[in-house]
This record gives sequence, structure tokens and C-alpha cells, in this order.
Amino acid sequence: MILTVTLNAALDVTYQVPTLRLGETHRPTAVDVRAGGKGLNVARVLHALGHETMVTGLVGGDTGAAIRADVRVSGLRESLFDMAGPSRRTVTIVSDGTATAVNEPGPPVSISDWADFLGGYHALAARASFVVLSGSLPGNLPDDAYAQLVRATGTPTILDASGGPLLEGLAARPSVVKPNAAELAETTGLSDPVAAARVLLGRGAGAVVASLGADGLVAVTERGSWRVRVPEALSGNPTGAGDACVAALAAGHALDWPTRLAEAVAVSAAAVPCPLAGDIDQATYARLRPAITVEELDAHANR
Amino acid sequence: MILTVTLNAALDVTYQVPTLRLGETHRPTAVDVRAGGKGLNVARVLHALGHETMVTGLVGGDTGAAIRADVRVSGLRESLFDMAGPSRRTVTIVSDGTATAVNEPGPPVSISDWADFLGGYHALAARASFVVLSGSLPGNLPDDAYAQLVRATGTPTILDASGGPLLEGLAARPSVVKPNAAELAETTGLSDPVAAARVLLGRGAGAVVASLGADGLVAVTERGSWRVRVPEALSGNPTGAGDACVAALAAGHALDWPTRLAEAVAVSAAAVPCPLAGDIDQATYARLRPAITVEELDAHANR
Repeated sequence: MILTVTLNAALDVTYQVPTLRLGETHRPTAVDVRAGGKGLNVARVLHALGHETMVTGLVGGDTGAAIRADVRVSGLRESLFDMAGPSRRTVTIVSDGTATAVNEPGPPVSISDWADFLGGYHALAARASFVVLSGSLPGNLPDDAYAQLVRATGTPTILDASGGPLLEGLAARPSVVKPNAAELAETTGLSDPVAAARVLLGRGAGAVVASLGADGLVAVTERGSWRVRVPEALSGNPTGAGDACVAALAAGHALDWPTRLAEAVAVSAAAVPCPLAGDIDQATYARLRPAITVEELDAHANR
Repeated sequence: MILTVTLNAALDVTYQVPTLRLGETHRPTAVDVRAGGKGLNVARVLHALGHETMVTGLVGGDTGAAIRADVRVSGLRESLFDMAGPSRRTVTIVSDGTATAVNEPGPPVSISDWADFLGGYHALAARASFVVLSGSLPGNLPDDAYAQLVRATGTPTILDASGGPLLEGLAARPSVVKPNAAELAETTGLSDPVAAARVLLGRGAGAVVASLGADGLVAVTERGSWRVRVPEALSGNPTGAGDACVAALAAGHALDWPTRLAEAVAVSAAAVPCPLAGDIDQATYARLRPAITVEELDAHANR
């Protein structure tokens, strides 16, 4: 079982409107409401790939009840913990091919709710083969919250975070971190992704897999470094692609690195045509997977 | 007790953002969530004016639970009925003084949910001194739904609706209808509000009170016609002003027409400075009320 953690789960509300005009009132042509947050998107992809998953995190209020209900409707097993505050919403208005969004920050997590979660997490992670820690932290949790979760278990863990939670998390030695190009540059001040990934590897990660959008990914690990390219240009939803990449890295934790990385690029590319994060297009996966090539970088420097 | 009916109740979510930019993701500086729909706004104003009120309508799903909870937190008594579908949301993004909104249409009401509501409404209306029917209908209810509610009770009733539901409602002879200038013109094809109001009076209303925004209101009744002006220009929230006007007309159902209309203009103006519909500013009310004058129109033609 792969455990995915979503500390700042959201009720994602998506409206389609023909044309969004500032200052006007619109009647949506479609309304989609689903449980969201990066960890939940990762769980959906894992489920679509046929992996046994367990969803955990903190939910509260009417929005939390709606998140819990949607997780179950989606066929995902959940062990979500109750918190006192109401779960946040995100509202996205899709119009003329562009998405305009308002993301609520979410409620503060009380000390007792966090303590209850930590106790439950410890037991869940002990039963998992792999743990996914993904997405933003509720505003009042300290930057080392993910570091606490990495240290609380001996189960291998991937961390997909940015800023302080990523930097603090590295010190706890997660198996993998998956920054994107912007997060890598922001965290290290370096524009070259391979050099930047080496810096993060030096700070404690077992492996750094940097997702570079249309440029595929680079991976710097204790066992070697690789670059994997996307064989064709795709347009669509980049948020979903990052979560799909994390899902594939988690799903492939027992594979050798080149195969694991090729899977990650194929699954990630298969998310791009899907409008909603968490979905993947199996036909795109099947078409691209055989065409993906993995190039080893600078083998001597890394061994 | 004044009964307010909200058939298409909504969970109104309002975000403040510094500047709304199409295609971007925003973090709101303030989030307000409250029960909405025109009948609920009217009930809030009645409550603020010190009148005993009862809220009814149809709610369902997690959004319905949130509406019911907020109604109670607001100190309003409710006798809301459950429906199978989830209550709609409205999302309003306020930025740089303008409001950009997406209003969900709401779920269809099943035949059995409508039958249950009608039975309950009959008993509630029999106990009320006055009934307020206000706002849009759920999409699948017929245009004569308000007419059914007017005919179901001998209690005097104000109808604030537009289009087909207003036209069908008139035939059931409500005590008062309250169109605004645009609704009056749309319904009659006439641009002069007094002439248009006389047309609606002829179709069955006991009185037609047309709210004209900054121009105050005109009233055409079986007992005379009046024009009431706002003594000073106000800027702010016109939606709330219409609902406050309805509330004052309901609250003043035992007053003579000139006093009732002067109250309606003062309460309506007191809603304009408030950003949220359903609120009124008591200081604005107290300042404007003594300055309002009521002009009788063409007395002989109306008696």
C-alpha cells in the first residue's frame, strides 16, 4: 500500500464559462466539484495505475465532509483525520482556454489535531511500502512539519514541496524530492537544473528528480544521474503532470532508476491532455512509453 | 411572524482579492461564506429591524447543511425542507471595487421534494402575518410555482421575481409585487415606470412597488399612487437595496401606504453602504428617514 498525505486538502470547484468578464455575473456551463490537493491527485493517479493506495491528511467542516465523500466515490481508500476548522476551497474559472483561480489558504491546525494526526500517521506509514508527502502546508504548521513526518517512519518517502518545507524536509533525508524547475531555481539560486539538483542531493535527499515540463526531467541520485526527454510536444494541464510524475516515482519505487524515470515521464505526459489534475490518458501513456529514452549523465562524476 | 421563502437558496462565497487578473491564481485577503438567496437576505433585514421571521425553502447536500448552519448562526428561525440535490453555490470575487461572479444554477427539485415543501409551506403560511416570495426559481420548477404558493394561502404576500415567474405570479393576485426598473421594462415593454406599474396592477397585483435605484421608487396601488425619492446620492451595493426594500414593505404591511413607502426607501438606502446583501446600516437609516418625502401622483386617476 502506498500512503499519500494531503495536509492542506481542498474542495476543488471548477467552473466552465464561455467568456469571463471582470465585473460581470456569469452562469457556468459546467460545474465540477472534487476533492483536491496534490496528495489526493497523486492518489488518483496511483489508483488509475492499479496500485493499492491509502489517502490520509486533515479535513474539517462541511467542505471536509464533501472531500471525504468524494474520495470514497472516487474509489480511494481513506484514513483522513478530523480537524476543528473547515477545509479550504479552491475555485477555478476556466474560460477561453485559460484558468483563473482563487485558492483559499485553509484553516489553522490546532495542536491537538496535529498530535492526533501524527499518532495516526505513524501507524499508517508503518504499514505502507512507500509514503508520498505532497503539497502546501496549512499556514500555521511549521516549515519542519514534513521533516517530522519523514523522521516518524522508516518507510521510504517522496517529498514534493517548495520553499521552507522543502529545505527543512531535506535535512530529514527523504528517499526522493521532486522539485520543478522554478522550485529548484528558487531554492538554490542556480539556473542549471543538474547543478541545482546536486546541491539538494548534498543537503540530504536520497535522490532529486526535477520535473522540467516540456523538457522532461533530470534525476540526480546516489547511484547516477539521468536526463529523460518527452518524445513529443504536448499542451494542456501542467499541474496534473507534476502530480502524475510523483505518482509514477512512488509506483516505481522497486524499479531500477532508468525504468522508474521513463515511467515517470510517460505517466506525467499522459496527464497533460486531461483537464483535471489526477486524471491520466491511457492512450497517451501507451503511445509515448515505448518512445522514451533515458540518457545517463556524466556517469563518473556521480559514482 | 413574517415567512420568507427561498426556493433557490445558495451558499454565497465572497472573496476579496487585491487585483483580479484573468489567467492567474489568487490568494484571497478575505473569505466570507454565508447563506444567501434573496429570501434569506430579506429575512436578515427583517431580523435586523426587530421583526419575528421564519425562513423556509429547499436545501440539500453539504452546501445545504452549511446554509442551514449559517441561518441558525445568524439568529434566524428556520423551517427549511430537505431536497435530494445539493444546494447551489455562488462565488463572487470582489477586486478594485468591482464584483465578478459565477452563480451556479442549482439542482432540479424532484416531484416528491416539491410536494413535501408545498405541504409544509401551507402550514407555515397559515401561521404567518405576511409572506415574502423572493428570488429565482430552481431551473426545473414551472413558471407558475410562485402562483401556486400565492394561491395556497390567504396570508398577504409580496412577490419579488422577474420574467415568467412574475407574470404567472400576478394572475394569482399577490398583495404586492416589487419589480425593479429593468424587470418592469422587460415585462411590459414600457420605459415609463408608472405606466408599466399600472399594466402590472391591471394583471392582478394588489399593488406594484417599483424600485428605481438612485431614483427611489414609485408605487401604484388600488388606493393611490406615489413617488418617493432618495434625499441624497449613495454608492454601494444595489442587490442588497432591493432585498431591503422588500423587507421594509413586508415589515410595514400594517402601515398606511405613504409611511410604508417612506420606510422602504429609508431601509433600502441603509443597505447600500453595506458590502453584503442582508445587512443594513442603522446610522444611514436614522439620518435619511426624516428627510424622505412622499409625493402623491395623479390622485384622481387612481381612485
